[in-house]
Amino acid sequence: MNSFNPPKRILMGPGPSNVNPRVREAMAKPTIGHLDPEFIKLMDEIKGLLKYAFQTKNEVTFAVSGPGSVGMETCLVNLIEPGSKVLVCINGVFGGRMKSIVERCGADPIVINISWGKAIDPQLFEHTLKKNTGISVCAFVHAETSTGAKSDIKTLTEIAHRNNTLVIADTVTSLGGIPLMIDDWNIDISYSGSQKCLSCPPGLSPITFNERAIESIKKRKTPVQSWFMDLNLVLSYWGGNTKRAYHHTAPINSLYALHESLLILKEEGIENSWKRHQANGEKLVQELEKIELKPIVKENERLPQLTSVSLPEGIDEAKVRSTLLNEFNIEVGAGLGELAGKVWRIGLMGYSSNEKNISACVNALKNILGK
Amino acid sequence: MNSFNPPKRILMGPGPSNVNPRVREAMAKPTIGHLDPEFIKLMDEIKGLLKYAFQTKNEVTFAVSGPGSVGMETCLVNLIEPGSKVLVCINGVFGGRMKSIVERCGADPIVINISWGKAIDPQLFEHTLKKNTGISVCAFVHAETSTGAKSDIKTLTEIAHRNNTLVIADTVTSLGGIPLMIDDWNIDISYSGSQKCLSCPPGLSPITFNERAIESIKKRKTPVQSWFMDLNLVLSYWGGNTKRAYHHTAPINSLYALHESLLILKEEGIENSWKRHQANGEKLVQELEKIELKPIVKENERLPQLTSVSLPEGIDEAKVRSTLLNEFNIEVGAGLGELAGKVWRIGLMGYSSNEKNISACVNALKNILGK
Repeated sequence: MNSFNPPKRILMGPGPSNVNPRVREAMAKPTIGHLDPEFIKLMDEIKGLLKYAFQTKNEVTFAVSGPGSVGMETCLVNLIEPGSKVLVCINGVFGGRMKSIVERCGADPIVINISWGKAIDPQLFEHTLKKNTGISVCAFVHAETSTGAKSDIKTLTEIAHRNNTLVIADTVTSLGGIPLMIDDWNIDISYSGSQKCLSCPPGLSPITFNERAIESIKKRKTPVQSWFMDLNLVLSYWGGNTKRAYHHTAPINSLYALHESLLILKEEGIENSWKRHQANGEKLVQELEKIELKPIVKENERLPQLTSVSLPEGIDEAKVRSTLLNEFNIEVGAGLGELAGKVWRIGLMGYSSNEKNISACVNALKNILGK
Repeated sequence: MNSFNPPKRILMGPGPSNVNPRVREAMAKPTIGHLDPEFIKLMDEIKGLLKYAFQTKNEVTFAVSGPGSVGMETCLVNLIEPGSKVLVCINGVFGGRMKSIVERCGADPIVINISWGKAIDPQLFEHTLKKNTGISVCAFVHAETSTGAKSDIKTLTEIAHRNNTLVIADTVTSLGGIPLMIDDWNIDISYSGSQKCLSCPPGLSPITFNERAIESIKKRKTPVQSWFMDLNLVLSYWGGNTKRAYHHTAPINSLYALHESLLILKEEGIENSWKRHQANGEKLVQELEKIELKPIVKENERLPQLTSVSLPEGIDEAKVRSTLLNEFNIEVGAGLGELAGKVWRIGLMGYSSNEKNISACVNALKNILGK
């Protein structure tokens, strides 16, 4: 058995995206202790940079030591208790995952099902909220990674607050890629992932809680069912004011990488990053339409960082993806769930979002499909 | 704000240990997709290498995408259900953590408290098992990272099996450092950590389940309370025979690092690694005794990879550790829990376990303590 030498792929799937060499270099720096004062300083810088990325002043903003799914579960297990009523919007895989977690908490999910590929309908959302009493939390996805649809979470949050519920927003694929304003939009809780528009290797989940959310957690009557995800315990390590105490051993080198990827975002400027993603997403759709690959999401609900296209008639879609990967070193994503076998998901996230990649991918598809 | 440049520390605390430059280099290789066929091959190699490290043929042997605490919680939440009776042995911080998780599962912990710094007493263990009916799982720590004590988990497992219970063994600090034979000792479930004697950066938890454990999980009447840690779901990605399906996005680059660190272990040979840890641990104790720093654990229960020593009278222990760190770039660990302010924990784990580090640490302590 030998050391692993990965092929050099152009990552244009639903994530991970390609990682800037600066970030990989940061990740390879010597490991230091998780309570080393120099590491604590780094954690503070990461918190500051994450506040910038989330556009928030929330003190409780940090990186969960696990992938986005752990971020999702952390938000839900801290906010809900057995018997809580939670409104869950399902317009793709990740809403469904939230529902499953709500059930595992012994809580009661009230579900809104929306066609995959569509945004969450604010009217239906408000109607469902009014029809059901006692809902304490609403959970929805900003950028559905399984479909490429964007929901208007600013409006959804306004509606939720008018109906006295907190909101949890999944921003795994949106953070850094499309406008997301945690404070201006009054979003109570949000979690994201490192490997999408931040272009950091996977394994960390940026997360943020506002004061209203923290107050709600303080009023819990039952313990959080997960020890690892219990915010009260995690904050003894990541919290701001007190001496940092050991909770778990943080993934030191992964946090070096996150720090560097957030620095790169700040250097570019988050508005510029949003503009770049938007421009490249539009360009990709134009080019794909020329070879008759049509996006499944309508224009005003379409994510620029992730485009799902319908498949041409009569092709072996897995074979095309495998040719793309093996002959062109380009990865695109297959359909998931309801959309399995029906779409490709083409990502332009973070460091992967550039014109060179658009040309490479479209030319390769032209070649394979004989267009 | 600038890129982070960590100081070069000699890591002689309770973990993380120093990471071999080969492992850091592996970690910095280009990221590929978590469903890329080349990555799936790497996962299979990692499973094979982990079987070697654990000395097991268990098919369900893989790396949980989170630190050791997630490994611990994964084992417990899959094995126990509300109302289960679980015997938890507490001789340090980590037994206490297990108890907290058992309680959060709605299960009933039967606790054996043993003095910190001592091994678990097999007679007391057997007595408690016989006295309490209906215990389904026993949980104990092989190498207590908070004290430096080693328990005889081979004997404990024999006793547990004679009394018809499964065992969960915490091998976070033992794996690769002292003899651990999952199959020969019949251990049903075990979890470890990447950052101790494997000398990989923190963030992954190697884990193994034998068939008896899997059978027990299959017989559950209630769903596993964690979505992320539900073994049935995780195995759709890490499982052996079927097509790999998306569960969560694996921490790709961290797994590159784990693969390389396991290769290094295999190159050295696990018995040689055990011998090296043993020899260096003994040498450290000899040298420390010369400057009147005495180990708190008696010789036959002492871990060679982690030595807790009593503090000299009248010193400011935090100041000594801080001088060690700032002037000598050497990290040693403080006491935790009951032992806070009473001991230092000096680690010689994995790549950190060498004679040069012993001299550097003992000479620095001599210098600071004026011995």
